[in-house]
Amino acid sequence: MDALARIERTLGSALAQAGRPGGPPLLAQAMMAAVFPRGARIRSRLCLAVAAACGDDDPMASEGAAAAIELLHCASLVHDDLPCFDNAELRRGRPSVHRAFGEPLAVLAGDALIVLAFQIAAQGASRKPVRVGPLVRIIAESVGAPHGIAAGQAWECEPEADLGEYQRAKTGALFAAAAMAGAAAAGAEAEAWRLVGERLGEAYQVADDISDVMSNTDELGKPIGQDRALGRPSAALQLGVPGALARLDALARDAAEAIPPCPGAAELRALTMMEARRLLPKDLSLRAA
Amino acid sequence: MDALARIERTLGSALAQAGRPGGPPLLAQAMMAAVFPRGARIRSRLCLAVAAACGDDDPMASEGAAAAIELLHCASLVHDDLPCFDNAELRRGRPSVHRAFGEPLAVLAGDALIVLAFQIAAQGASRKPVRVGPLVRIIAESVGAPHGIAAGQAWECEPEADLGEYQRAKTGALFAAAAMAGAAAAGAEAEAWRLVGERLGEAYQVADDISDVMSNTDELGKPIGQDRALGRPSAALQLGVPGALARLDALARDAAEAIPPCPGAAELRALTMMEARRLLPKDLSLRAA
Repeated sequence: MDALARIERTLGSALAQAGRPGGPPLLAQAMMAAVFPRGARIRSRLCLAVAAACGDDDPMASEGAAAAIELLHCASLVHDDLPCFDNAELRRGRPSVHRAFGEPLAVLAGDALIVLAFQIAAQGASRKPVRVGPLVRIIAESVGAPHGIAAGQAWECEPEADLGEYQRAKTGALFAAAAMAGAAAAGAEAEAWRLVGERLGEAYQVADDISDVMSNTDELGKPIGQDRALGRPSAALQLGVPGALARLDALARDAAEAIPPCPGAAELRALTMMEARRLLPKDLSLRAA
Repeated sequence: MDALARIERTLGSALAQAGRPGGPPLLAQAMMAAVFPRGARIRSRLCLAVAAACGDDDPMASEGAAAAIELLHCASLVHDDLPCFDNAELRRGRPSVHRAFGEPLAVLAGDALIVLAFQIAAQGASRKPVRVGPLVRIIAESVGAPHGIAAGQAWECEPEADLGEYQRAKTGALFAAAAMAGAAAAGAEAEAWRLVGERLGEAYQVADDISDVMSNTDELGKPIGQDRALGRPSAALQLGVPGALARLDALARDAAEAIPPCPGAAELRALTMMEARRLLPKDLSLRAA
């Protein structure tokens, strides 16, 4: 079974577990709408790719870790879209969760997805109990305070913020966790993978900045031109699109070079370079290829 | 060291960990304001009391579990107080987190406290890795979907809700988890403790209903008379105060009787009866004693 199918199957059974009969149906629907239809599943695929490169001796553990990373990403989108943050109407081409279900259910769906992530990660690794603790720690650090997604978002509420720290926390932390959790789920040393994840997170941020200026709303599934409109920092606006493309390639190369020795290092290096191109809007990725 | 001191120390170091330098200062302050000054710490004291009754062979594990339960309770209060839910101005006699820090930081502080709870529970049990998975599962079930706090709150968004299921999820689930996590942290069988926690949760709900009609805002630290004003179900309104007091005593007795065989069963039974009385407003608890 390919990586994406494993991710979708694990997410599907996680959501079925959270939505089993007896609970409030609208909450279950709101959680489903946050996770399906799928986005690119970039972070969870990174998690499985690293697990595979490390031997993936317990696929249930790596699938649990990958699903947890994706659930946390989806939870962060639901909360980021809330009226008190971006007040976004669209997400993946559909009404955002708070538009479709109201603000209370959007807050609760985000909360319940965060909880579900830890549950699924622990469940996945239940056959290798010594891996549960490290997985919980890696995942928690990437979404909590002081350096995870919630902290990244909270920098927007500070009078002064360090841009690098902001982006590292808001985007880089979960990419780092995806790589590290993949390694930890396969019983490998996780810390060695942090840099790989962080660089891919930066590459993703640059690709996202390019998409925001070059794509169209249909392809992106959310409004374009938001970075300029909201005065957000953007590699595409700072470096121009050709400069940003060069930066994207450099970051992908850096990430590939940071891959530590492991059984599947060569394959993962090739995959990394290929995947970086796939982050771009379709016509640009052809031009860049 | 007494139970409360152990809880405060563990919560203090958990918050220090989340608020260490380099993160966004306002988020750290909002998280602190959600946890300190303390409420009654009823759930975390229950967790430690059950751990003690089960032998408490790893105090770091039981302290981590108790702190996790309390962090989740605090997170749920922060999110419940949001404008899209209760829009509460006061909590524990002070401005609610969203009043003091704004809505975005209140959403993020709640999120980060949920994450911190799992992190602290896993960290606490790190010397007994086989206990981490069960602790994560117990805690997750009590706050997520379909039967945890988030689900309980989500019943308020449904056109029709089963009152028993609503209260079990919104209040009972975390009490059940407190008892079960205390047992699991001490290496005992957790499921046997579910009923004890559920009955104490019901007792607490009845005491809370009584406080809402009999207390004053200063003592309660939040507005009184909310149940009648918001049309919420209330044992004190349904049974009258004397009837509700009798119900409280009956539930405490039922909880004490449900305590499974364990080294400290007799002591815990006595404590349970005494603590139920302490849930009441001061003048009533004297009268009831």
